[in-house]
Amino acid sequence: MRYDVAIIGSGPGGLSAAINAKIRNKNIIVFGNSNLSEKVVKAPKINNYLGFYDINGENLKNMFKSHIDKMGIEINEERVNNVYAMGDYFSIMVNEKMYEASTVILATGVEYTKPIKGEEEFVGKGVGYCATCDASLYKGKKVAIVGYNSEAEEEANFLMEIASKVYYIPMYKNEYDVDENIEIIKDIPIEVQGDTKANKLVLRNTDLDVDGIFFIKNSISPKYLVPGLEVEDGHIKVDRNMKTNINGCFAAGDCVGKPYQYIKAAGEGQVAALNAVSYLDKK
Amino acid sequence: MRYDVAIIGSGPGGLSAAINAKIRNKNIIVFGNSNLSEKVVKAPKINNYLGFYDINGENLKNMFKSHIDKMGIEINEERVNNVYAMGDYFSIMVNEKMYEASTVILATGVEYTKPIKGEEEFVGKGVGYCATCDASLYKGKKVAIVGYNSEAEEEANFLMEIASKVYYIPMYKNEYDVDENIEIIKDIPIEVQGDTKANKLVLRNTDLDVDGIFFIKNSISPKYLVPGLEVEDGHIKVDRNMKTNINGCFAAGDCVGKPYQYIKAAGEGQVAALNAVSYLDKK
Repeated sequence: MRYDVAIIGSGPGGLSAAINAKIRNKNIIVFGNSNLSEKVVKAPKINNYLGFYDINGENLKNMFKSHIDKMGIEINEERVNNVYAMGDYFSIMVNEKMYEASTVILATGVEYTKPIKGEEEFVGKGVGYCATCDASLYKGKKVAIVGYNSEAEEEANFLMEIASKVYYIPMYKNEYDVDENIEIIKDIPIEVQGDTKANKLVLRNTDLDVDGIFFIKNSISPKYLVPGLEVEDGHIKVDRNMKTNINGCFAAGDCVGKPYQYIKAAGEGQVAALNAVSYLDKK
Repeated sequence: MRYDVAIIGSGPGGLSAAINAKIRNKNIIVFGNSNLSEKVVKAPKINNYLGFYDINGENLKNMFKSHIDKMGIEINEERVNNVYAMGDYFSIMVNEKMYEASTVILATGVEYTKPIKGEEEFVGKGVGYCATCDASLYKGKKVAIVGYNSEAEEEANFLMEIASKVYYIPMYKNEYDVDENIEIIKDIPIEVQGDTKANKLVLRNTDLDVDGIFFIKNSISPKYLVPGLEVEDGHIKVDRNMKTNINGCFAAGDCVGKPYQYIKAAGEGQVAALNAVSYLDKK
């Protein structure tokens, strides 16, 4: 089946897009997490979301949750690795499967981690952002996984079934639930080195000679998430209708630029959804 | 005294601008009405303002009211007739006095009435939007006032003290509390006619030979409210930071374009306020 609107992100921008598209009777899918937005949840006090004075982030999140629950909107917790523009629809790749949608609304926030030296240079040449996607390339080989969250542990475990050696460099504090054959290295990645392909991950205290390096981040930079997407100063470029340079692809919230604020994101999500609906209706 | 930010309009765009500017410790004045927004109040059911599901307009208005009350924000109910850009500040003209502000945020909505034939052609040449402002020009003369709301009655009464003849054409149903010397005409205005100046108001059933004609509307078209303001397809032209073509003048909400939606307006009000603050801080 093909969805009318796929929304990537469950912060205020994504949720506002979702309720607006749903009110217009569109068949939607929302990718995000059940906590909706870590950023909202962690806010101690919010005074500038019109209608709620002196509310904390947890309670504002609960109001958002109640809103989407009452409208029957669910959050799909699968992680989106790539979105490909196929002409008149989009292919949305998650670890284990693919979804199709006629329009996409990107509301991915801005918490993508800054790339380390050499990382971007070697993307697709030994550096990747989805281990399970590219696992087959590393059969019997040595791989390093830099994990920015505990979900990366699953990717490391999956790779261990295929690769000959897996290094796991966790960038967060936690218990690490990884296969006993995986070597955990507590160090700070500094640089990716290589020739035609990446072959070395330089850490602060050691070097790792590897065939591939994966960075598993909370969110991927939009230009790697959606190949061909126009980005300007680190933000997705949109017009006043929240249209990106790709037909049928819209964006809203922090990922399109400052100020990084909730109701700004919600307003943009609404505009993105209504323009996606109008795009669908014209097709 | 000079305000940091003058906000014109008390709908979601204006109120969101007000709370954001106030949080940034700016000295603000908000022009609007105590009912905040007729459009919001009259909405039977609102589902697309993220955080409130299935709320009616009256209750959403009450949430907005409670928010601004708790922040000590008051609404000034004086009617703004003109805003003049004076270089590094703005003069805001109301019927009886003048206010000054370093920045202005226009959030005037779009409910300005469509001009009738000839109306715009004769603006400043016998046609005006503020009878009390221009009253002195009509001493001993004949004037027609087309009133779109009961506030226009006061303007008619004031003019009656100066003019020799006042016709009052009410465009609303009500009791009319006007001076007994004023001639009330229940008819529909069709066209303003004249040579170098307007001299005739053509109604559906009769013609009035007059020296001046006032249209007293709920809101004035932005290009007459703020001389020099760039307008495109009936909306104030803004960039993604909600800046207009006039330095220090920002705009938000329905007056800058579709979709005409509450949370879109609130998001824009926030962006306008934060950019006004940044403009002030750079000065």
